[in-house]
Amino acid sequence: MSERTSADAAGGVTVLGLGAMGTALARTLLAAGHPVTVWNRTRARAEALAAEGATVADTPEAATAANPLVIVCVLDYAAVRQTLEPAAAALAGRALVNLTNGTPAQAGETAAWANGHGADYLDGGIMAIPPMIGHPGATLLYSGSRAAFDTHQRTLERFGVAAYLDKDPGAAPLYDIALLSAMYGLFGGALHAIALVGPGEGRATEFTSTLLLPWLQAMMASVPEFARQLDTGDFDSRAATSNLAMQAAAYANLLDASETAGVDPLLLRPMGELLRRAAAEGHGDRDVPALGTLLRTERR
Amino acid sequence: MSERTSADAAGGVTVLGLGAMGTALARTLLAAGHPVTVWNRTRARAEALAAEGATVADTPEAATAANPLVIVCVLDYAAVRQTLEPAAAALAGRALVNLTNGTPAQAGETAAWANGHGADYLDGGIMAIPPMIGHPGATLLYSGSRAAFDTHQRTLERFGVAAYLDKDPGAAPLYDIALLSAMYGLFGGALHAIALVGPGEGRATEFTSTLLLPWLQAMMASVPEFARQLDTGDFDSRAATSNLAMQAAAYANLLDASETAGVDPLLLRPMGELLRRAAAEGHGDRDVPALGTLLRTERR
Repeated sequence: MSERTSADAAGGVTVLGLGAMGTALARTLLAAGHPVTVWNRTRARAEALAAEGATVADTPEAATAANPLVIVCVLDYAAVRQTLEPAAAALAGRALVNLTNGTPAQAGETAAWANGHGADYLDGGIMAIPPMIGHPGATLLYSGSRAAFDTHQRTLERFGVAAYLDKDPGAAPLYDIALLSAMYGLFGGALHAIALVGPGEGRATEFTSTLLLPWLQAMMASVPEFARQLDTGDFDSRAATSNLAMQAAAYANLLDASETAGVDPLLLRPMGELLRRAAAEGHGDRDVPALGTLLRTERR
Repeated sequence: MSERTSADAAGGVTVLGLGAMGTALARTLLAAGHPVTVWNRTRARAEALAAEGATVADTPEAATAANPLVIVCVLDYAAVRQTLEPAAAALAGRALVNLTNGTPAQAGETAAWANGHGADYLDGGIMAIPPMIGHPGATLLYSGSRAAFDTHQRTLERFGVAAYLDKDPGAAPLYDIALLSAMYGLFGGALHAIALVGPGEGRATEFTSTLLLPWLQAMMASVPEFARQLDTGDFDSRAATSNLAMQAAAYANLLDASETAGVDPLLLRPMGELLRRAAAEGHGDRDVPALGTLLRTERR
C-alpha cells in the first residue's frame, strides 16, 4: 500500500492549526507528496511551512474550501469552534477530521454541528507525541463517518496506524482517554516504585532494568484475564490465590513503608480504598478483576 | 547448577508456617529431594505434608533445632514473633530466612532480635503467588546476611530466581513493596481503562488485545528514562514534547469523560493533583519523570 497509484493516494489536504502536532501532521503530508493548504491563527507558523511547499490560506474558510479533506488540530474544543465557525459555509461535501483532544461529549456535539453544515465528520485520537507522527509506533484512533474514513484511509495512514472504531464519533476520544488512563496508572506506579528505592548513584536505573521492567512485563500477562472476567461477569471460575481480602490487609504495608521511607503515598491511597470496599462489599474471595465492577457508578 | 553434587545442595530445611505459600515452599523442597521438617500452628496442615515425606515437629523449637536452615512464612510479623519466640533457644548458629510479608522496619527489628539469639538473618520478598513457586517466573528478593545467602543460595534457588540485594535486611521488603506499588498502578490504570470502554460482548477483551496491551508495551519504553532522570536529577536535557503544564490542563478530560461514562475516577484523581502541583511549583516545562521529585516528602 506504499506506492501511490491514484490521485486519491496523494490528494490535497487542509490542516487547520499548526501547534507542535498540527505542524507534524502537515509536514508528514508534504513529505508524502500531498498538496497541503494550511491556516494558523498566528500566521508566522504557517509561513514556516510554506518554505516546505504548503499553501498558506488567509482564513479558515479559504483553507477549508481548498481541499476535500480538512483536518483540524488545535488546543481544545473552544479553539475548534473558533476555527471552524468562520469556515462553516465552506464545509458542505467535505470530510472534516478533528484530531483535537477532547471528550466523547464534545466529539458528539461537533459531529452534529459539522453534519448540520453538510460535512462528513470523523473524530480522532492521536496515540503518539508529535515526533512519532509518520513513524512506526504511532497509532491514531478514528470514529464517526465510516465513508469519510474509507475515502481517506490511505491519507490518514500517512500519520501512523489508522484504526477505525465505531460510527459513534465519541468512541475515539473515549478509547483515547481509556489508554491515557492506563498510561498514567503505569507511570504513577513506576514513579512511586522508583521513589521508594531512592534514586541516585544509578540505583533507580539498576532497579528499573533488573527488577521493575521484568516484573511489570510479568504482571501485564494478567490483564487479558481482567478483560475476560469483566466481559463475562464470571469472577469466580478461577480460585484467587491472593484474594482481595488478603490484599486489602497487606496493602497497609505499602502505605506504612512509603511514609517511613519519606515517599508520599498519595498515588497509592485510592487503590487501598478500593480494596477495602471490595472486601467490605462481599468481593473478598475474588481477585483483582472484580475491582473493575466497583469503578462503575452507573451499570450499563 | 541443577545437578546435586554435595550434601549442601539437598540439605535439611525447616519450614515454619504452612499457609498456601509455606506449603508451596515445603512441597518444592521435598520434590527437590531435601529433608524437610515442618511445623504449623494448626497441625493438620503439617500432617498433610507428612504423606509427601516431611517430618512433622511438635513445637517451633523442635522444628528449628532440626536443620541449619530455618524458613518462616506466616501471615504477618505478629505471627512471626509468636512462632519464633518459643524457638529462640534453638536459633544459635542457624540461618533464619523470613519470607513473611512486612515492612523494612519490621525486617530490621526481626533481624536484630534473631542476631541477638545467635542466628544469621535473611529477609525475603516473594515476587510470586504460591502456584509459581519452583516454576519459571518466580523471583525472590533477599537482604541481610550475605553469608547466610551464599551458604544456602542453591537451596533458595529451588523456589525461583534468588536475588541478593543488600546487607540491610529492610532492602528486600522495600523493593518488594516498590514492585507491588508499580503493579497496583498498572492494574488500577488497566481496570479504569477497561471500565471506560464498557465491558461486555467481548469489548474489553478486544480492546485489551488490540489496543491496551500494545499501548502499555509502548509506554513501558519510557520508564528507563524516568529512572535516568531521577538518578541524575537532570530533568531538562530532553525537551518535553508534551510537558507537565499541558498534561495538567488535558487531564481534566480524563476525569470529565470518566464521570460522564459512569466510571468513578477515584483511581485517577491523585495523578491529576500531582500534575497540578508540578505545574504550580515550576515543573511545567518538564516531563513526567519530574513528578517523581514531588513524591518525596524528605529529601534523602
